[in-house]
Amino acid sequence: MSAAAQNKGRLLGVGVGPGDPELLTLKAIRALGEADVIAHFAKAGNASRSRAIVERHLRADVAELPLYYPVTTELPKCSAGYRELIAAFYDGAAATITAQLEAGRVVAVICEGDPLFYGSYMHLHARLAPHFATEIVAGVTGMSGCWSAAGMPIAQGDDVFTVLPATLPEGELVRRLSEADAAVVMKVGRHLPKLRRALSRSGRLPRAIYVERGTMAEEKMIPLIAKADDEAPYFAIVLVPGWEERPGADK
Amino acid sequence: MSAAAQNKGRLLGVGVGPGDPELLTLKAIRALGEADVIAHFAKAGNASRSRAIVERHLRADVAELPLYYPVTTELPKCSAGYRELIAAFYDGAAATITAQLEAGRVVAVICEGDPLFYGSYMHLHARLAPHFATEIVAGVTGMSGCWSAAGMPIAQGDDVFTVLPATLPEGELVRRLSEADAAVVMKVGRHLPKLRRALSRSGRLPRAIYVERGTMAEEKMIPLIAKADDEAPYFAIVLVPGWEERPGADK
Repeated sequence: MSAAAQNKGRLLGVGVGPGDPELLTLKAIRALGEADVIAHFAKAGNASRSRAIVERHLRADVAELPLYYPVTTELPKCSAGYRELIAAFYDGAAATITAQLEAGRVVAVICEGDPLFYGSYMHLHARLAPHFATEIVAGVTGMSGCWSAAGMPIAQGDDVFTVLPATLPEGELVRRLSEADAAVVMKVGRHLPKLRRALSRSGRLPRAIYVERGTMAEEKMIPLIAKADDEAPYFAIVLVPGWEERPGADK
Repeated sequence: MSAAAQNKGRLLGVGVGPGDPELLTLKAIRALGEADVIAHFAKAGNASRSRAIVERHLRADVAELPLYYPVTTELPKCSAGYRELIAAFYDGAAATITAQLEAGRVVAVICEGDPLFYGSYMHLHARLAPHFATEIVAGVTGMSGCWSAAGMPIAQGDDVFTVLPATLPEGELVRRLSEADAAVVMKVGRHLPKLRRALSRSGRLPRAIYVERGTMAEEKMIPLIAKADDEAPYFAIVLVPGWEERPGADK
């Protein structure tokens, strides 16, 4: 932190956990109490999911700064146009927060799961942390919430554990699933048919568990092999538990 | 849960986070309040680290059940003798807890980090969860605590993220580190010289961060390349952040 930063506000990246409001940490609640401004990401026209998790802990006088993702449905995700639009969105959000920090305010950006594990907050962090005093409040990840809700030990001992995006090509998924003792596959959405094939080819399908909205009221959890359709939201995940030598594993 | 289980006690696997007592969740605190018995693992002759994390939340009238790992320093970890001794220890611990559950008590096993992610609790869970009503309280993992304390985004977008034990052979470490966008290496201990070579051979050494006792008062964090000695405790971890395209990554 530079000396100049000490006269400015503070940036807090606050993990609020996977969805169950009881999975908030004491440190997150303290951060919510200290913040002058609460910033949260949301799809345009939708309520912020992270805001819903912390709602009961928001001070009546706190300022809120919703950050609405640009609508990008007409652009392919790998296109230069998409990348530019998203980069401009994060630049704009960082500039808005910079103004608050320059005015000496404490700004908490609330994040589902853990702030530095595949989260939108990281795009702000990369832009702002070099210039302002910054503190991260670690959170329970979405995947921890899912395997806990499933009561399913995920990895043990010398297991190699891998997190994979379902966006990978089928052959890559097969290879990486075969080499991992335990895995979590994220961003399932429209990739479910391909992921099913990759799990089958790697011999992992029988132990795969499909989870939607883990720890939330609308949670859905089912062995993937028993799921009859190929409908899945973008945020669905698939757990592939490891620990093959666990007592009772083959009974 | 079987019908019979409804007349018995309840088993709670409670994650208490990476070490900072403020990283306890509200749900963990509620579980501590509901439990008749708090069980915790510790090395013989040592205080339990998980107990220290929750100490201020323990009820005065709660029963405590310390579970002391057998002393195994004279046995190689891969030996049949070691495996038998450890299995007997977990069998005994499960039997002790079974007696409490059969008596109708609520038993909370407190666990550093997350209960179902590389934790000792999983050995009890595998033995007890098929027979008793069981609930898992997800926790902030040790690795989340470490990258948050470092303020270091670990993985983003379509990154492949892998957790590796430092016990793997050097060639395997090189191969797996080369193939992962982001990684966490656990159980560093006496494997540090080998891990250093593997990080160097895979081109990952310049971004590797060494962390001891993340989020605790005695936390040590240093770029691995700047660490002058090869001393490391068993629980030290090395972070290899991904997200190579992050803004400012190459500046």
